[in-house]
Amino acid sequence: MSETLIPRFLRPMKAPGENAGYALELGPEHPLVLDSGKVLSPLTIAYITYGTLNAERSNAVLITHALTGDQFVASTHPVTGKPGWWDLAVGPGKPIDTDRFFVICANVLGGCMGTTGPASIDPATGKIYGLNFPLVTIRDMVRAQAMLLDQLGIEKLLCVIGGSMGGMQALQWAATYPERVFSAMPIATGARHSAQNIAFHEVGRQAIMADPDWRGGDYNSFDVHPSKGLAVARMAAHITYLSEAALQRKFGRELQDRQALSFGFDADFQIESYLRHQGMTFVDRFDANSYLYITRAMDYFDLAADFDGVLAEAFRGTKARFCLVSFTSDWLFPTSENKRIAHALNASGANVSFVEIESDRGHDAFLLDEPELFQVMQGFLGSAASARGVK
Amino acid sequence: MSETLIPRFLRPMKAPGENAGYALELGPEHPLVLDSGKVLSPLTIAYITYGTLNAERSNAVLITHALTGDQFVASTHPVTGKPGWWDLAVGPGKPIDTDRFFVICANVLGGCMGTTGPASIDPATGKIYGLNFPLVTIRDMVRAQAMLLDQLGIEKLLCVIGGSMGGMQALQWAATYPERVFSAMPIATGARHSAQNIAFHEVGRQAIMADPDWRGGDYNSFDVHPSKGLAVARMAAHITYLSEAALQRKFGRELQDRQALSFGFDADFQIESYLRHQGMTFVDRFDANSYLYITRAMDYFDLAADFDGVLAEAFRGTKARFCLVSFTSDWLFPTSENKRIAHALNASGANVSFVEIESDRGHDAFLLDEPELFQVMQGFLGSAASARGVK
Repeated sequence: MSETLIPRFLRPMKAPGENAGYALELGPEHPLVLDSGKVLSPLTIAYITYGTLNAERSNAVLITHALTGDQFVASTHPVTGKPGWWDLAVGPGKPIDTDRFFVICANVLGGCMGTTGPASIDPATGKIYGLNFPLVTIRDMVRAQAMLLDQLGIEKLLCVIGGSMGGMQALQWAATYPERVFSAMPIATGARHSAQNIAFHEVGRQAIMADPDWRGGDYNSFDVHPSKGLAVARMAAHITYLSEAALQRKFGRELQDRQALSFGFDADFQIESYLRHQGMTFVDRFDANSYLYITRAMDYFDLAADFDGVLAEAFRGTKARFCLVSFTSDWLFPTSENKRIAHALNASGANVSFVEIESDRGHDAFLLDEPELFQVMQGFLGSAASARGVK
Repeated sequence: MSETLIPRFLRPMKAPGENAGYALELGPEHPLVLDSGKVLSPLTIAYITYGTLNAERSNAVLITHALTGDQFVASTHPVTGKPGWWDLAVGPGKPIDTDRFFVICANVLGGCMGTTGPASIDPATGKIYGLNFPLVTIRDMVRAQAMLLDQLGIEKLLCVIGGSMGGMQALQWAATYPERVFSAMPIATGARHSAQNIAFHEVGRQAIMADPDWRGGDYNSFDVHPSKGLAVARMAAHITYLSEAALQRKFGRELQDRQALSFGFDADFQIESYLRHQGMTFVDRFDANSYLYITRAMDYFDLAADFDGVLAEAFRGTKARFCLVSFTSDWLFPTSENKRIAHALNASGANVSFVEIESDRGHDAFLLDEPELFQVMQGFLGSAASARGVK
């Protein structure tokens, strides 16, 4: 990327070397008006890019991340040291080919990896926002991403692609900025959060808020973190990301490091040990208040709500091509919900294809090595690129 | 029931009037040897009866309760003041007809409604057991029930019937005491707890243990109760008792007492308000340590484990009649698991019928007004009674 394109907004997040991304700083001249009516300013958007923007600026692919994802889509995570969460999908010669496309991924609004969120400083008080951070929506996240694209000089995306909450953002992009989206690939997602999904999120939030170290959201002032509550929230959520069949196949009733039941409350079963590990490692990389805000944004998501409940109206006028993907064993965002979106897109006259992939790995399949997903991705992106004349 | 039948073990739990049940006190002459190898003594079994035991003692029906159930199957709950949990099914002229049958229901071992559990006094220390209470299994629960039947002078049950964990006990009865069971009706249950079910229980336990008021299980000594953690555990579990479809139909994205989203963390949605209510009311009637012990007993349940994994062997030699019932939308104990039991019973040569009931109400359907369930129940019990010559 050229230094002259976006000079004054960029500062490296880390020492040079590793592709650790940038932070776009938007001052008072760029206020973000939120769905709540509140105004967020100043605003930092932490993001990362791969590949090169072509001269026509027509090869930009925006990847939108899920609830606990971040911008480190194909880069080593600065906290965990693990490979990027979509390392399998993004890179030179990979389905989202960084030799061909200019790939952007930004940490969502309300997140905790550099973009403004509840752990940022509230300019009104000079202290960490905590619960004074305004509630944000999926549309607010997308608005912030649009501001980033403005600064990057990208008028229209070749594709916006993401799974789960990332898919919600992809749908929201098509609905809010139809003229800025050439194609969209929402994966394993929904056009609204279901009652069951809200219920699981509410359990997670209550677990966090029940932790006395949460301190009404002001834990930073006390130099504590509600890690126990956040770990419980993560454990509950993690079950919903998998499938009954996958859990049975992977763990069954196998015991962990023992020959017989202990007749106690230790993690006798592998599944218990696995879940505890998921909870414990998560709290090292995620902020509890961000978890509250982002789950809330997902709960509030209902794309049809602004159109008297008629989802097709949300997509009226879009010329974008869509490719929807669901997984057979995903019970968080089942195929039926993805079909509902496909029907709405059809009804609005959009160009839409829909693929249901056979997998027993549940919702998380979109993050795993699913060859059919990658084939579909590569094919859809390639076709969109050809249609737009991207070499 | 005659006073002479079981004179010295009975004492009313409450003032006379309401049918509030009895407590059987078993002294050192009746030790309960547990699966863990530990011995529990003394032992109290709180139970309730309805109807009259006939002269042949052939009309006894044992109802076995679920995780958070109790002996108040058709009586006002002494804490909540609500009708019995199976009031729809049990009573004069009802499917489990107390005009015809002598109905018994006992609070399970490890429970908190009068039967010996972690809130009882440990004779070794004179203090409340807490985590010094030995881990109990479904088989231990059934052993305690058998001791109760011994004292009641009932050699063989006409039927043992229960849903969920109650169904596990019904299966265990048939496996452990084949000669004492004329018929069994396990409803919405499994012959083992699945990895996913263990996972949800583990989340609940971690939520309780994360509550600082749990105090390592010794909360009674500090006159506190880990109510917040227990409420979170209940909320998570409660979602699994319902179905996605029922939640969507009942709550959808409807708002609670408001016209618009609050852009905050209040219970905007009805489903949130409902869940919070479920959590809050539960802690008034249930002991946190009992929740730990009973969920653990369910996790440990694997009827085939003692028979090299061959479930049919567990039922070898039983002459009992079985009626298995599942509900189409129950994802905690799906039809597939119930079918697995039916196949094992068939393989062991048992007399078994299996009914899958169409319902979108999820696992909890067994507690609700499901006419088909009641018809099956009435038919199965009536047929068993006729076969045994019960008038």
